[in-house]
Amino acid sequence: MHRIRAVTNLLDQPHHDGSALHVPEGTPTLGDRVPVRVRVPQAAGVDRVWLRTVRDGEPRLSEAVRDGDTPGGEASFVTEVDVHNPVTPYRFLLDGSGGYRWLDGRGVHDRDVPDAGSFRLTTHAPAPAWLGDGLVYQVFPDRFARSGAASDRAVPDWAAPAAWDDEPAGDGVLAGTQLYGGDLDGITEHLDHLVALGVGTVYLTPVFPGRSNHRYDASTFDHVDPLLGGDEAYARLSAAVHARGMRLMGDITTNHTGQEHEWFARALADPTSPERGMYVWDEPGRPDVATTPDGAGYAAWLGFGSLPKLDWSSPETWRRLVTGDRAPITRYLREPFGLDGWRVDVANMTGRWGSADRAHDVARELRAAVVGERPDAGLIAEHFHDATHDLLAGGWHANMNYTGFTRPAWSWLAQHGSPVAAHGLPVAGVRRPGSAMVAAMRDFDAAVPWSVTARQWNLLGSHDTPRLATVVGSAELVEVAATLLFTYPGTPVVFAGDEVGATGDNGEHARTTMAWDQGARGGGPRWDAATLDVYRRLSAVRRGSSALRDGGLRWAVVTEDAVVFLRESPTERVLVVLARGPWAGAVLPGHLVAPGASPEPLYGQVEVRATEAGIVVPGDGPGVGVHRLA
Amino acid sequence: MHRIRAVTNLLDQPHHDGSALHVPEGTPTLGDRVPVRVRVPQAAGVDRVWLRTVRDGEPRLSEAVRDGDTPGGEASFVTEVDVHNPVTPYRFLLDGSGGYRWLDGRGVHDRDVPDAGSFRLTTHAPAPAWLGDGLVYQVFPDRFARSGAASDRAVPDWAAPAAWDDEPAGDGVLAGTQLYGGDLDGITEHLDHLVALGVGTVYLTPVFPGRSNHRYDASTFDHVDPLLGGDEAYARLSAAVHARGMRLMGDITTNHTGQEHEWFARALADPTSPERGMYVWDEPGRPDVATTPDGAGYAAWLGFGSLPKLDWSSPETWRRLVTGDRAPITRYLREPFGLDGWRVDVANMTGRWGSADRAHDVARELRAAVVGERPDAGLIAEHFHDATHDLLAGGWHANMNYTGFTRPAWSWLAQHGSPVAAHGLPVAGVRRPGSAMVAAMRDFDAAVPWSVTARQWNLLGSHDTPRLATVVGSAELVEVAATLLFTYPGTPVVFAGDEVGATGDNGEHARTTMAWDQGARGGGPRWDAATLDVYRRLSAVRRGSSALRDGGLRWAVVTEDAVVFLRESPTERVLVVLARGPWAGAVLPGHLVAPGASPEPLYGQVEVRATEAGIVVPGDGPGVGVHRLA
Repeated sequence: MHRIRAVTNLLDQPHHDGSALHVPEGTPTLGDRVPVRVRVPQAAGVDRVWLRTVRDGEPRLSEAVRDGDTPGGEASFVTEVDVHNPVTPYRFLLDGSGGYRWLDGRGVHDRDVPDAGSFRLTTHAPAPAWLGDGLVYQVFPDRFARSGAASDRAVPDWAAPAAWDDEPAGDGVLAGTQLYGGDLDGITEHLDHLVALGVGTVYLTPVFPGRSNHRYDASTFDHVDPLLGGDEAYARLSAAVHARGMRLMGDITTNHTGQEHEWFARALADPTSPERGMYVWDEPGRPDVATTPDGAGYAAWLGFGSLPKLDWSSPETWRRLVTGDRAPITRYLREPFGLDGWRVDVANMTGRWGSADRAHDVARELRAAVVGERPDAGLIAEHFHDATHDLLAGGWHANMNYTGFTRPAWSWLAQHGSPVAAHGLPVAGVRRPGSAMVAAMRDFDAAVPWSVTARQWNLLGSHDTPRLATVVGSAELVEVAATLLFTYPGTPVVFAGDEVGATGDNGEHARTTMAWDQGARGGGPRWDAATLDVYRRLSAVRRGSSALRDGGLRWAVVTEDAVVFLRESPTERVLVVLARGPWAGAVLPGHLVAPGASPEPLYGQVEVRATEAGIVVPGDGPGVGVHRLA
Repeated sequence: MHRIRAVTNLLDQPHHDGSALHVPEGTPTLGDRVPVRVRVPQAAGVDRVWLRTVRDGEPRLSEAVRDGDTPGGEASFVTEVDVHNPVTPYRFLLDGSGGYRWLDGRGVHDRDVPDAGSFRLTTHAPAPAWLGDGLVYQVFPDRFARSGAASDRAVPDWAAPAAWDDEPAGDGVLAGTQLYGGDLDGITEHLDHLVALGVGTVYLTPVFPGRSNHRYDASTFDHVDPLLGGDEAYARLSAAVHARGMRLMGDITTNHTGQEHEWFARALADPTSPERGMYVWDEPGRPDVATTPDGAGYAAWLGFGSLPKLDWSSPETWRRLVTGDRAPITRYLREPFGLDGWRVDVANMTGRWGSADRAHDVARELRAAVVGERPDAGLIAEHFHDATHDLLAGGWHANMNYTGFTRPAWSWLAQHGSPVAAHGLPVAGVRRPGSAMVAAMRDFDAAVPWSVTARQWNLLGSHDTPRLATVVGSAELVEVAATLLFTYPGTPVVFAGDEVGATGDNGEHARTTMAWDQGARGGGPRWDAATLDVYRRLSAVRRGSSALRDGGLRWAVVTEDAVVFLRESPTERVLVVLARGPWAGAVLPGHLVAPGASPEPLYGQVEVRATEAGIVVPGDGPGVGVHRLA
């Protein structure tokens, strides 16, 4: 009992997040005054509340006024933020019998804390609304589907042809050269699968020609790889995607090009060419510096000579990539391609080299360019690591949320001791308690504005990681993970194949093909129909719930084996229960359910009930339960 | 027993800080490879160690090699950092039977963490060595001492004369206008007091003319206030200070001038004058905007019209303050004034207004200017709040460490419920456990390079805060606080009067005069000879110890009522025990004392002993003990 009492106390804590119950929707502009609201349960023992903002580097306090109570005895305090700086950090000072405390994005603190965990109000517009509407479906073009035309194409010199059912190589040369022959018309032919899954946005990894199956080593941005069907097939795919009400996003490398890129070829051939200045040149032998045949040193991605690094201090780089007539960043947003935005590869390193750090400038200018071309375009960073600082500057709309979502989720659900789950670290993965997952999520979420959190690209795996099914090792835990994905704030991103139970030990090994033939038969070893049903149903539940799409996030219970949280919009309250195994269960305050109503099951096996004692959450597990409370 | 075991485990944790035992002394330059070392006790259960750095935005791992064991069973692992960026975040990945963990500046973590807590290696030079040699003694010129000439001076129109023994007003108009008549020759006449205290640097709050006793509202930077004796007295003071081997630092406002400043007068009189552009103009009615008689809006410090804000986007501001021939920033570093550096007032707001944030540029250029004039000049920020971000950019050498030292120390030692101790917050102060103090210190320390931590201006109070004696309420706790001040990493800063037990409820009320007559009699109500003895002895202990001046910091015991830590240099290990009350005591590993040796008492009543069981730390308190272990 002690344990349950302790953990349910989370709902006794004052709560704020940037969602519409606490901060009005919409992006403020400089000069606005924005009311912000904090909810204070009676049990928190708080008498007075102040808002602390930081303005021009100096904290300011303004007392919040109590302006309402909920039936459950929760007081609402409100005060205003002067929007004077582009980003305003804020937190709440709570005073009561136990001495003053702070409430920030990481929680309630019994001591003074740095500003790093403060909530943040930003004047930078969030990602476009369409990016939150449905799930983002990631397609690695070589591995999704082959159209009839695919077999007619000649195999390029760098490629090793693979049969569709071959297991992808996890390392060695083959990992980059195995060519399965998927193409863009193949994707177009299978859009029904996406529609049934509730896909809102199709995100394709690169389609420009290269000398690898992943195409992150572009040799030109001037046209789409003929191996994929070329510009025409891309235009056909775009038209078909848009005809079904979906969006299409591309993938572009801004940190580097391929060594075979026409620009780098010119830079090598002629040191006086304008292209020479588009790359970063440095002393051979320095870290991450590769060497040309004639002995010049050039910066390269992690030192790989095949990926020379672009220099964003060069006006020519800007002209070729962003501002020129044929610059890919804007050109592919126009018809006939009509991309709705970009995922930007290696955004974390783009514009950074030694003492020069232009990363925020590049991000801001890229946003200005894409939004200038299409006002509702989206710009998502690939920052595999701590991206929080880069998400405050008004550049990237959001990030592929490996650190704030994927890794914490894995850490709770992974098979203990699996090297797969430690992806990127030379150690074994660890299965950690729910408290570790939640603490990590809060750390990363707290460091960015809510408007970013609400549109982060949450994912359970990608073409750069092991597959979820391999990480967690059971269909039950895949379901727990998928439920977290579809109920957590942000945009769910699914790597094609996860929804049918694909497996893989690392990024390369995880680039599995889709076993369409097995799907046509209703299932098979590479087409897990039960998992597909889980994904389809969860996706539908999210689409039907304003709270799950846009609501705030309030943790209710955090134990070793279970976590429970609320998603709340102005019109709906949803309770999410996730258990990786049996646990003690909990009783939550009854006022969370509308008087006389019962929790409405939306998804899952775990059934919560409203009783006189409160909302009883049984300790069943592994399992999940998603209920509409109000 | 359970409690002691738990807390002494801190010495079982792997340890790193940026001190000479772990990172070679000296400032690295781009291109260097710097070995860093981590110490791993056997009890930590760690088998392998990797260094994780962030280079150009991307983490890199390199395995550390075990290259030595200490007698106590502590392994030393070493690897190198490539110095590729100006600031390199780094932390350690520890693997062992319990699963991987991270070691960063905040401690050891059983989960993934953001980079905010990472250690940092910086290519920016630290504060000059002299700033760490002795204590910094802060003098508020109007309140320190009157020379014979003081009584001859006419009282200015804004001033209300006060008798030397009058209690300073804590608020109202008098707080800024009470004039006690202290002057610069008065300081010169009392330098023996400073020498006996072990002062290394005399820091004077502003000496430029203004219309207040604090002179933060300068009316000119062209000369020293005649009320203080003018330029000649400042030159005499400088010569006398330097003749005694001490340094002299000034105080300059870069955020604003006084409303009566000659520049602002010109700006008001002539909207076409070059001075007009030196100030920030904005719409009347906006936050922090004051209004001129003719209705123009100008930014002002916290909206106080008497303090108009400087615009650092104006070349004229740069010329007048920094780069011109008579610019005060450099001119007062030259003879006959010969200042050794500046404390910069309101550094946190300098250069920040609305969407413009030039704070880091200003800080960097100010450093370039003062170091250009005098290579060993020091530049210290007044940033009353979370300064960590501003300390990474190569501008300010260090900061007045209110958040990382003063407030945590107060929170542990303050009288519970005292509004005085909550200074700056509209609530009562709270006496918090030692763990809260240490967690706050680690949070702030972790966010800046060790080379900054090692020169932070630690203080227990200033002209802007209540007096320590009032905050803690007893001479015993003043001694505990003073011992922390003189044994914690950084430069101890003492506000004149603290060493003789001055009291005061807030910044204004704390600007007490020095009761020299009572000192001459050997003591009195305003001259606590016992406290003076405490300060003199602690200052001498610090001067005589390389570990206390420059050593690393390793927490050993953190309990509610006591904290114990080690300071370690390559040649010395010092153990510091601080107790605010009786506690359970602890037994530390015996190997911390050299074989056959005994702990050598350096200061305090708490005596630790080496026994067969280990080093016994008795649970006496309140009290302190400082011992040399090796």
